[in-house]
Formats: sequence, C-alpha cells, structure tokens
Amino acid sequence: MKENLYRFNSDFQTESGIAISGMELFYCTSGEYIHGKSRVVWVCHALTASADCESWWPDLIGTDKALGKANEFLICVNIPSSCYGSTGPLSVNTKTGEKYYSEFPVFTVRDIVNAMIELRKHLRIDNIDLLIGGSMGGYQCVEWAIMEPQVVKNLVLVATGARESAWGIAIHTAQRLAIETDPSFGGKHDDAGSKGLKTARAIGMLTYRSYEAFVAAQSDDDDRTDNFKVSSYIHYQGDKLVNRFNAYSYWLLTKTMDSHNVGRGRAGVESALKSITARTLCIGISSDFLCPVKEQKFLAENIPGATFIEIDSPFGHDGFLVEGKIIGEYVNEFFA
Amino acid sequence: MKENLYRFNSDFQTESGIAISGMELFYCTSGEYIHGKSRVVWVCHALTASADCESWWPDLIGTDKALGKANEFLICVNIPSSCYGSTGPLSVNTKTGEKYYSEFPVFTVRDIVNAMIELRKHLRIDNIDLLIGGSMGGYQCVEWAIMEPQVVKNLVLVATGARESAWGIAIHTAQRLAIETDPSFGGKHDDAGSKGLKTARAIGMLTYRSYEAFVAAQSDDDDRTDNFKVSSYIHYQGDKLVNRFNAYSYWLLTKTMDSHNVGRGRAGVESALKSITARTLCIGISSDFLCPVKEQKFLAENIPGATFIEIDSPFGHDGFLVEGKIIGEYVNEFFA
Repeated sequence: MKENLYRFNSDFQTESGIAISGMELFYCTSGEYIHGKSRVVWVCHALTASADCESWWPDLIGTDKALGKANEFLICVNIPSSCYGSTGPLSVNTKTGEKYYSEFPVFTVRDIVNAMIELRKHLRIDNIDLLIGGSMGGYQCVEWAIMEPQVVKNLVLVATGARESAWGIAIHTAQRLAIETDPSFGGKHDDAGSKGLKTARAIGMLTYRSYEAFVAAQSDDDDRTDNFKVSSYIHYQGDKLVNRFNAYSYWLLTKTMDSHNVGRGRAGVESALKSITARTLCIGISSDFLCPVKEQKFLAENIPGATFIEIDSPFGHDGFLVEGKIIGEYVNEFFA
Repeated sequence: MKENLYRFNSDFQTESGIAISGMELFYCTSGEYIHGKSRVVWVCHALTASADCESWWPDLIGTDKALGKANEFLICVNIPSSCYGSTGPLSVNTKTGEKYYSEFPVFTVRDIVNAMIELRKHLRIDNIDLLIGGSMGGYQCVEWAIMEPQVVKNLVLVATGARESAWGIAIHTAQRLAIETDPSFGGKHDDAGSKGLKTARAIGMLTYRSYEAFVAAQSDDDDRTDNFKVSSYIHYQGDKLVNRFNAYSYWLLTKTMDSHNVGRGRAGVESALKSITARTLCIGISSDFLCPVKEQKFLAENIPGATFIEIDSPFGHDGFLVEGKIIGEYVNEFFA
C-alpha cells in the first residue's frame, strides 16, 4: 500500500479540551482517488494494528480480494495514540520539544473520528462507499456513521458493539493495572512499562480466543508438571507485542475503548443507532466472548434495515481477523 | 468451627524431592470424631480460601445445612503453600530460622493430598464418607479418590476437572507475569509483590464470572467517559485480596493448579478416573468458562457409575460458591 502523511494546519482539539499542535495522521492507500468517480473503501483498524490493513486483514483486502480491487480507492488511517506513524505518546510535543509520554491526552473514539473527518475533507472525499472495521475499528465505524450519515453509504461492523461493555472495561482495567505495576511506566523513555505491557498482552490473549481454541492448539500430551506449551505461547506473544508496540499507546487506547458509547449526549444508544442511514451489515463470531454476538445483534436490531450474520468459528474474537475470507464473501455479496 | 493444628513428626517430602521440616497443617472441624462411628465429611478448599469452610460455603455447610450436621464430623484443612495457618512461604524454615518466601517449593496437588492423608491417619480416620470440593478443591478430591479408593466412599466434584486445561494454564501464566512484573516480588517481606498480586486477582475476577454477570451488575447508566463502576469494582476486589493474601502463596498455588493431571504416571486420565470406586456426583455450572461443564461431563463419563448435574446459573465459575444452596440440595439427595 502507498504510505502518506497528513499534517494538520491548525491545532486539533480533543473532547477533553486539549489542543494538539502539528498533529499528523499516517495513512495507507491503494488505488487512486478521483473526485466524484472513485469508489471509496475506508478501513478502520483495531487496538494494536496499523494503517497497512493489507498486512493484518490479508484474506479480506488486496487487489484480488473482496476489498481493495483495482477500481477502488482504499484508505486506512493509523489512529492517534497508536505508534505506527500518527501522532501519539511517543511523538514530540511541538510546544515543549520533548516527547509526550504520559502527557499525551486520552482520545475518545469521537476524537479519532473527528481527526479522520478532517483528513476526509482534506482529501475532498464526499462519500465513503464502504466503511468497515472490526473490534475497536468497528467502534470508529459506528461512531462515524452517526456523526456523518450523509457521508457513510455502506457500513460493515464486525465483532464490535455500540458501547464498551462493563466486561470490556473490566478487562482493560486489569490490563492497565498490569502496566501501572511496572515501575518504569511513567518514565521518559520509549520502552517504559514494557514488562507491564507484556502482561497486558497476556491478558488480551485470554480474551481473543476461546477455551476450545486454547485446548485444541496448546495442550501438552505428556506428563510434565511445568514448562507447559501454552505458557511459552503466552510469553512469546507478550514479548512479540513488546517489540512492536509501547505501553503508553496501549494504556491510552484501552481508555479510548472504555469511552466508547454512541449514545453519549444523543439520548441513548438506541436513539443514536436509529439515526444511521447507511446500509449496514453486522457480523458476529459465534465463539467471541469479548464482544459477543448479542452485541452485533443489538446493533442490527437498532440500525434501520441492518442485516445480522453470525459466522460459526472457534477462533473467538480473533475470528474477525482469522475468518477474513468468509467475511470477504459476505462483504462481496453486500457490496456487489 | 473448631481450630486445630497438626505438626508432622518427620520431614514431609514433596514430589520434587524437597524435605519440609516441622510441617504444620491447620484445620477446622465441626462435630466430634468417634473412631468407627462418625460419619466423616471432608471438604477441600480452593485457591484463596481457608480451612473455615463454613465462612466461604455458608449455604452448603453448617449445622442446619446439607453438610456439617450435628451427627457428622466435618473437616477442612488449609492447604500447604496457602497463608491461613498451614506451612507456606511466609512460614519460618526451621532449617534456616528465616521465612521461606521464594525458597518455598511448589506443591503438586498430589503433595497436598499426601499431606492430608498423613493427617487422616493421625486422626485414625479410615473412611471418608463424603469428600467434596469445588474448583481447585475438586482437584484435591479427584486425586484423593484415585490415591485412596479404599478410603473415599462418596465423592462430590464441583466446577472442576481431571487435569488443568491449557486455558487454565494460560490464565495462571498471565497472573504470574503480573506478579513477576512487581519488582518487590522476591523480596524478603510479607507484602512483597502486592501490586502484582492485585493485578493477578483482577485477572482472576475476569475468569470467575461471565460477560452477562459483569454487564448485569457493573454497567453504568450515565454518559461518563471515565471512572466506570466496574473499574472501581476490579480495584476494590484486588485491594481486598491483597489485604488477606500474599503474592508468594498465590504464585505457588497457580503452579500447583498447573501441575494437576490425574493421569500422570497412571497411563492417562481416563485410566486413572476408571480406578475410582467412590460413588460420585459431578456438578457443573452452566456459565462457567474457566472450568466449563464439558470437564465435569468428562469426569462423569469416565468415573464408573458417576452422575452429572448441570446447574443453570449466570454466575460463571463463582457459581460453585454462589449456588451453595442448590448444590446443597443435590448433595442432600446424593448423600441421604
């Protein structure tokens, strides 16, 4: 995908009243945008992903896949607070000349969408023909469809919900506790809190797959009493994330997710969802216990004319990535 | 309940080859034991519980409850490695005159049962008329029924399994990572690792109840974007455990659970379960996703003549405690 950078001309204001000077959005595109002609596909990414959506949704996105065909303009923006090119806690605060670290403000999902809307306007995109995201990516999509019903024409929400559940907030609270237990967190260096981040990822791993998936893939078949296969797996996945992410971004983005509530200031969740005018497809993964299918059913029940599809898969929440091929088939049908 | 202490006359040998000098078992009893006459009920406790089983299983145990009636001798032993009276990491090592802390060995479930067997012999108990435990307490019960089929006459296994699952080990790995992230863990003081323990408990809380239970009890009904009810709840529960437990015991007991495998050295799990001669009742909680009902079904399918009961409850793994009254009804019927 082509890499691009957009630098804001004026300060970006967060809902919490913080002004970010010189904010930058890093984004990847495929295809060419021709004003008034191109079919625009906008992809929103989840917690630790990047703007390079072909890399993390390979079964769904690519010139020979359901999305990203040669005649489409496809765009994915790295969300602020993350660490893959857009402004975040490891960026230099132009006001102080030093990196933000713990001074970086919490972005709400609406802040993220507001930033993307500014980029949309800059690119002179009037219509988003298809807006799609899974998990936290879906949080952005459903917010956006409410904030700009005139812009979002078709909407695909995968393994996501209208509001962060108490269950999700409980998980994120445990993850932040893990990061805060690391005394290096708060320090002015890029790998501050990395041991805590490893634990936070370990907690995340528990919520991404199911009991069945762990037992099927990670059981030992001998009589050992220690050094279990699954322990190595959890350590390996934790270390892997520490090598590619940072504790500040992780801590902040869990706060971002917690803030997700499409009903806030809109007379409730149902009322907000009813204002969506996009044609909508809601997809759930049968074994998802982080963001269970009842949440996607709820979306479909409250978004006018929306369709609900349940994919039977043992991969839990991770199914939104692993089952990209099946999701692609439904998207193809929906967005033909 | 009456409090008692038993001090071993000789060294206790762990499976790992460590000798513990002067090991003590703290245990609570109700009723009187008369050799050859008393009906003996032996209760095994789970991870952070104590020998005072009336306090943590109040709907099941008491003179007017299913177990602990006046004509019964009821006993519950605090498991070694714990911190409620039996020898554990905060005990003084008689060989060095200093507390064990990180020098305390990992006890396997079999070590725990071996220690309890020594106490049983000391008390001249030849028959255990009913052996009952939930969760990790059930691990001890099923091991014991295999180790001493001639002693255990009736067996009730609640929300437990024959072998720690890869899922359980993954959870414990994340919990130990949380404790190890606290740099005070390893220090020679009783509250070493307490911040890490708080996170470990937070992780545990996630696995004890269900999505539904969290959403039903801990959702906010306003438009806040921070300071959520469920975050306070997780912090509160974490602090509460820190005030009554210690990180060494927690770390060690998760290792104990990981070691649970009734099939070890016995030609497999099925073969070990088939050697049980006790009349057996296996009880599962419908919403338990830590130790799901399939594990209790498996026990019942492989223990000769065993019965399986599923309790429909939204309380997840915690159901083994919360649903004490219903469990009591089944136990009454089973042990009339």
